[in-house]
Amino acid sequence: MSNDTIVAVGTAPGVGGIAVVRLSGPDALPIALQHLSAGQLESRRATYCNFDELDDVVATYFPIGYSGEATVEIACHGSVYIQQTLVQTLIGSGARLADPGEYTLRAFMHGRMNLSQAEAVADLIEAATPQQHQLAVSQLRGGYAEKLRSLRTKLVDLTSLLELELDFSQEDVEFADRIKLEETIGELRTEIDTLLDSFSMGNALKRGIPVAIVGRPNAGKSSLLNALLNDDRAIVSPIPGTTRDTVEETLTINGLTFRFIDTAGLRQSDDPVEALGIERSRRAIDDAMLVLHVIDATDPTQADTGLLSGKETITLYNKCDLSRRNASEATDALCISAKTNEGIEQLKAMMHKRMQETVSGEVMLSNTRHRDALLRVEQALVNAAAGLAADTPADLVAVDLRDALYHLGTITGEVTSNDLLANIFGRFCIGK
Amino acid sequence: MSNDTIVAVGTAPGVGGIAVVRLSGPDALPIALQHLSAGQLESRRATYCNFDELDDVVATYFPIGYSGEATVEIACHGSVYIQQTLVQTLIGSGARLADPGEYTLRAFMHGRMNLSQAEAVADLIEAATPQQHQLAVSQLRGGYAEKLRSLRTKLVDLTSLLELELDFSQEDVEFADRIKLEETIGELRTEIDTLLDSFSMGNALKRGIPVAIVGRPNAGKSSLLNALLNDDRAIVSPIPGTTRDTVEETLTINGLTFRFIDTAGLRQSDDPVEALGIERSRRAIDDAMLVLHVIDATDPTQADTGLLSGKETITLYNKCDLSRRNASEATDALCISAKTNEGIEQLKAMMHKRMQETVSGEVMLSNTRHRDALLRVEQALVNAAAGLAADTPADLVAVDLRDALYHLGTITGEVTSNDLLANIFGRFCIGK
Repeated sequence: MSNDTIVAVGTAPGVGGIAVVRLSGPDALPIALQHLSAGQLESRRATYCNFDELDDVVATYFPIGYSGEATVEIACHGSVYIQQTLVQTLIGSGARLADPGEYTLRAFMHGRMNLSQAEAVADLIEAATPQQHQLAVSQLRGGYAEKLRSLRTKLVDLTSLLELELDFSQEDVEFADRIKLEETIGELRTEIDTLLDSFSMGNALKRGIPVAIVGRPNAGKSSLLNALLNDDRAIVSPIPGTTRDTVEETLTINGLTFRFIDTAGLRQSDDPVEALGIERSRRAIDDAMLVLHVIDATDPTQADTGLLSGKETITLYNKCDLSRRNASEATDALCISAKTNEGIEQLKAMMHKRMQETVSGEVMLSNTRHRDALLRVEQALVNAAAGLAADTPADLVAVDLRDALYHLGTITGEVTSNDLLANIFGRFCIGK
Repeated sequence: MSNDTIVAVGTAPGVGGIAVVRLSGPDALPIALQHLSAGQLESRRATYCNFDELDDVVATYFPIGYSGEATVEIACHGSVYIQQTLVQTLIGSGARLADPGEYTLRAFMHGRMNLSQAEAVADLIEAATPQQHQLAVSQLRGGYAEKLRSLRTKLVDLTSLLELELDFSQEDVEFADRIKLEETIGELRTEIDTLLDSFSMGNALKRGIPVAIVGRPNAGKSSLLNALLNDDRAIVSPIPGTTRDTVEETLTINGLTFRFIDTAGLRQSDDPVEALGIERSRRAIDDAMLVLHVIDATDPTQADTGLLSGKETITLYNKCDLSRRNASEATDALCISAKTNEGIEQLKAMMHKRMQETVSGEVMLSNTRHRDALLRVEQALVNAAAGLAADTPADLVAVDLRDALYHLGTITGEVTSNDLLANIFGRFCIGK
């Protein structure tokens, strides 16, 4: 790890009332003092002074800052010129422009947080809704880290037991009760399965709950989407993060974000070829956590629900301003009019209620990298269990368990590589 | 003045590594302490603590902050959710969302700065080039304020002398030597004229030096503009501030910003009707501080310069890749090719050199409001001088001098009105 001193603007890019420039590293204090009219900075004391006649600033020295290193924070006026000049000047005095996420990378390197916590910092900063925020906070300091620690302890115990047996293998002693080992592996797999199952919900909270709008041509799917979105255009916004490059239609209801999938087809006129429409609907339903099934209330022949089995579905009788015939027959369905906006508020309330129930307070997995690692842990455990069942020699089973430990370690950072770190911290903004 | 406690995000809008929320007013400390895990905040000591389980923050209390009031600054993670929730929570505890510029307005109200300095803060924050920054700094703390103070002192002395005469008017004593008074008014007018003369340069530094590109149809005006702009597309940017709604073509050369005026016509194909083109050129030249006169080097008939008298002009023989005949005859002109980019760098260097000479280190006027006020001061002085010359009674002359004092006072804020303040501080961003 490089031991130089880094500098960057920590606040949002652009013009603001104030901005904060951060220096971090062994020379943070001497570099800052070269330019500050204050002769010295007392620890953690906000000091009003002048930076090179450029601007009046408030400088604060932290012997151990966020990064786990000596840090000087300089709050200046937030003009583009002042921000750029401050950073350039400090670079001229020996600091280096920080890479994206480098402050947090250093915090990880100095043991101030583990890798999954460091990743949560990026999620925390991107959070736009209370649920996204809670998810990140839970990963940052809550049950998630505890869960991973407990999994690791159990796996280490298991592996140790087996390796103890290896050490004495020439004496043909079998320390580990193989039935007991298989049971423990089974318990671990159950815990990992629960975490993996929570991924779709965790990911839905982070990116938005995927919603499919399906129904026959001319049932009014695109009008419904418009009614849902236009009504609250002010709080409709592109989702930041992984989907940054493709702006999806999203809607936030009471803090819960819904993401409408496969809306490209809806935005066009309804599909001319029925077969294509059905295929598209099927895919959308597969990806969705919630399905809005739109039925034309004026057309008595519409009632097909074959596609929807097993999915959380809200059935909507649309065009209820024209006909209530079918609608009145429906129990457990909502009568709406995308045209007059009748029932749209009730629909939103229902969408929120249905999904809020699904979202519990339990530990949730939301990070795709962690999910991939957990899938590998599980596969290694499956291999180990199969080995035990087939009376495979202990040293081969131990290889599988060590493989499981390795992949678990990549989540929290016991196991790292430069590529992995570059990949994770490259996703951060500069200045964090 | 309201005596409540205000709150706003002080850093640039949007997502950043960190953000700073500022509370200012008599209840800043008690309101903050309701939500901070730190039991107390020591003066000016950065304290790491938790805000309502929402986020880990660094809070700093200033008994007298930027606004001249008790201030608590809370540095938090820079997510939209955290920023919004912090501000909403503090509003829920009795703070009020700050109006645009209200922190600076309060600084003015508490005598921490005068009005022209407060206005300079807005310019300082908007500054994108070294020259714009220097202009704002000079207005904030430099010779400009000193100049206004000296003008005011002289004007007060003058008025006092005349009013002393008024107090003893029934005794028919003439204290003030009228010739001396006229001389002093003349000196004041000279100083004000110098300031007024500096306005076009000050304004040019703030908004960009206005440049007109003129020449016959097909001389290559729009190609020249493209060559100038495309070459450094990275540092071409819309000018912030007064022209925010109309994006103009600007080019920054070595810190000096040039603003190309009336380019709408250039961007279209060259004018089909010659008469229209000439009229447009005439207007552009009137508004410009620098004229680029483009002549087609392949066309020997082009050499009209009738329009250009009195303006700083750079003559350019374009298409020099095709013909150097005319070009070689030209002294004090530049041969360029907008097509091959020949001579473009030399042109930029020449533009910078010519205008750099015009920009001196003297006190400069850059604020349109101040200019209007100074014009009124000058008019009042003209009236007073005329009155003195015509032996008008002293009490009528005194009215003119008091009028001059009044308008001078509106610049620095000795004279204010709510409308004036609302107008000035409404231009600020929220959080400053």
